[in-house]
Amino acid sequence: MSFSLDPRLEADTHPLGKLDGMHLRLMDNALVTWLILVPETSESEIYRLPVAHQLRLWAAVDQLGRYLAVHHPCDKLNVAAIGNVVAQLHVHVIARRNDDYAWPGVVWGRPERAAYPPEEVGRLAQALAATLGPGFEIERHWVE
Amino acid sequence: MSFSLDPRLEADTHPLGKLDGMHLRLMDNALVTWLILVPETSESEIYRLPVAHQLRLWAAVDQLGRYLAVHHPCDKLNVAAIGNVVAQLHVHVIARRNDDYAWPGVVWGRPERAAYPPEEVGRLAQALAATLGPGFEIERHWVE
Repeated sequence: MSFSLDPRLEADTHPLGKLDGMHLRLMDNALVTWLILVPETSESEIYRLPVAHQLRLWAAVDQLGRYLAVHHPCDKLNVAAIGNVVAQLHVHVIARRNDDYAWPGVVWGRPERAAYPPEEVGRLAQALAATLGPGFEIERHWVE
Repeated sequence: MSFSLDPRLEADTHPLGKLDGMHLRLMDNALVTWLILVPETSESEIYRLPVAHQLRLWAAVDQLGRYLAVHHPCDKLNVAAIGNVVAQLHVHVIARRNDDYAWPGVVWGRPERAAYPPEEVGRLAQALAATLGPGFEIERHWVE
């Protein structure tokens, strides 16, 4: 299957690696820890994925929730598949703090951004690799 | 386990029934078709549910997506567990149309509302019962 990442997702995020075959990206906004999981599919709706792929997706979301809870302590995880603007199927997993810029509102549609220093993206990718184990294939660029 | 619905969820939504043991509610906003699934748990994060309960939750979300796609044609489903305001675990499954009031933005945090005529809530509950089969126990009030 030929798959290419939506150019807006590509522009807004950093690649971290692949988790169980799905692209794992980091929104370039250091104000919150905002992960985005992109399965390689042309479907826009989760219910249209084969059940095995749905299970793989939610198992990855589960792993990312556990990772964030440990490594980026937060008051609430926000998990969402929206896709009104970018229809390519992607799931947000965001560590929200009650002192972040949008709390208690949602982060979508808000302009606030702070770019990551590149080394911080690398540290996050390496922490994911250490936590998630062999199901996570770290982006080559971040291999130490 | 003693469980009671968060009073804000109770106030903002209509009961439709129970789906595989989880409360299924309808946001009282006829401008979009906005379902809310509430598992009986004291956890606020999906990753803290036993895996079997997570699977049950996502299987129900899958069923609701299929139901909405057929009965409330839309341009995009929005599926989200947020919980910044109401921490009680609940999952939104919303049929978004590209001519609805918030498109392409998200519906959370927007004030627009139009109350349902009660008979329309009943029709929706009955359509769910006809579509979802025995896993759905319709709210007694809507039984014809």
